[in-house]
Amino acid sequence: MLGGIEMGGTKMVCAVSLDGRSVLAEVRYPTGSDPAAAMARAADFFLSHDRPLDALGVGAFGPCDPSTTSPTYGHITTTPKPGWAGADVLGLLRGRLGGVPIAFDTDVNAAALGELRCGAGRGLESLVYLTIGTGIGGGAVAGGRLIHGLTHPEMGHIRVRRPAEEIGVFPGVCPFHGDCLEGVASGPALAARWGVPGPELPPDHPAWELEANYLAESVATLVLVLSPQRIVVGGGVGLAPRLIERIRPRVLALIGGYVRHEQLAEGAEEFIVAPALGDQAGVVGALCLAQDALA
Amino acid sequence: MLGGIEMGGTKMVCAVSLDGRSVLAEVRYPTGSDPAAAMARAADFFLSHDRPLDALGVGAFGPCDPSTTSPTYGHITTTPKPGWAGADVLGLLRGRLGGVPIAFDTDVNAAALGELRCGAGRGLESLVYLTIGTGIGGGAVAGGRLIHGLTHPEMGHIRVRRPAEEIGVFPGVCPFHGDCLEGVASGPALAARWGVPGPELPPDHPAWELEANYLAESVATLVLVLSPQRIVVGGGVGLAPRLIERIRPRVLALIGGYVRHEQLAEGAEEFIVAPALGDQAGVVGALCLAQDALA
Repeated sequence: MLGGIEMGGTKMVCAVSLDGRSVLAEVRYPTGSDPAAAMARAADFFLSHDRPLDALGVGAFGPCDPSTTSPTYGHITTTPKPGWAGADVLGLLRGRLGGVPIAFDTDVNAAALGELRCGAGRGLESLVYLTIGTGIGGGAVAGGRLIHGLTHPEMGHIRVRRPAEEIGVFPGVCPFHGDCLEGVASGPALAARWGVPGPELPPDHPAWELEANYLAESVATLVLVLSPQRIVVGGGVGLAPRLIERIRPRVLALIGGYVRHEQLAEGAEEFIVAPALGDQAGVVGALCLAQDALA
Repeated sequence: MLGGIEMGGTKMVCAVSLDGRSVLAEVRYPTGSDPAAAMARAADFFLSHDRPLDALGVGAFGPCDPSTTSPTYGHITTTPKPGWAGADVLGLLRGRLGGVPIAFDTDVNAAALGELRCGAGRGLESLVYLTIGTGIGGGAVAGGRLIHGLTHPEMGHIRVRRPAEEIGVFPGVCPFHGDCLEGVASGPALAARWGVPGPELPPDHPAWELEANYLAESVATLVLVLSPQRIVVGGGVGLAPRLIERIRPRVLALIGGYVRHEQLAEGAEEFIVAPALGDQAGVVGALCLAQDALA
């Protein structure tokens, strides 16, 4: 049996599966501020089934350390989240689960892998998963493999061009960068800029024009840097009504005919898409990580 | 014996090697406007040695098609370069060289692989190679493998934030995008903006402050999207005196302490570096491609 954990900033989702795709049983609970308690509860769930756990995949909020050769592999690193800075997630799980193979990656990399193998990217080898909600994060697969290196991608913090008049009225909400993408286009950024939460802004509000511009510029940058076969845009803000429809033509205009491919023709409707797995992308991706850990 | 071809927009470099690293013999000639003649000359060189050619690697100017599963794999695609649009490079070589295994990728991906295996990235698994010259291009390795997908990365065409006063005086020179990175920071952009070729601008000219800002923002974006273990900055403009020294602190300021790693401490002197292979990165990388084609 395979297990997957999606560790979100606010909630944990644990699931088991026989084939690594269809979820047999699932449990959700608040992430809280006690890593030992949170991981013990996950382990208890995995040990509560008749079949033994063969492998486990973990997709964790970041910053975290997904480098298998690093001494802090499987740790949450510099998060401001109370109780979690430096938490040895992998160590806590191993203490309860013994020698079961465990794979650890970021939540957005897990979601990218889930969408590639079981969702919007089936049959492809490369994909970017971008989620726009409380924060903005991205995961990427190239040649069938998740992208890592020094640490892990932090796509939500790239800079975007802003209209001059916006720079004057809104400095952005990112505590590290002010007006990086997350600082101007996340849910909290929309709320700070317009005085009401993003979901309450009507579809014809000028906020959405600006939001579509920021996201389109970021998506165009991701196309030019990674050349993925598909880009999945999700998250509470990303899935706002008609937002993806507004992003597509702007991305094509920014690419300006320079990258030519049939996927970019006819409005990019199959190129920039919503998640096929909805909010299950992360935990299904964690199950995919488990399957790889078994192999 | 292994062969490598670096196909540049203006010159071709062909080399042979026994070990895939040290070059045994090399020939350089103008790329010209006749693909059949250029590839015949390359094939003649490879067939002129005592030992038979075991495998060949090609690093080509773009846009080209490096997708092995595509019907136009190994073709130059939509280049404005006279004579070369649609040229079947791989087909022309196969017609002369028969069944020798041939690997085909972009010139900048080849250079990235060359620097990773034999140059500034030895011992690493991920690296970005960015070249700033007549054009701006980038190649990337993650997990030891070159990044592809829909087509290939076109990192030189990402957008960068520009000072408001610059937007008013200089629209940029990119025929596709105006003021994308290549449009404002390439050699021709410097010449168009300041009226003299880049190499003639004195090191204390304000052009270099602006250039360092544009390049630093692009490098920061690449760090946040790809998280490479090292970034190699080369090319005729990229290697201008003191430019890399100016880029490093600006990249660190843009990352703003959000990505933490020892490589980013102490001025990033081992993180953002010049090519160790100089102008041989491309052809050495092509030899690395040949070695992989053999395996």
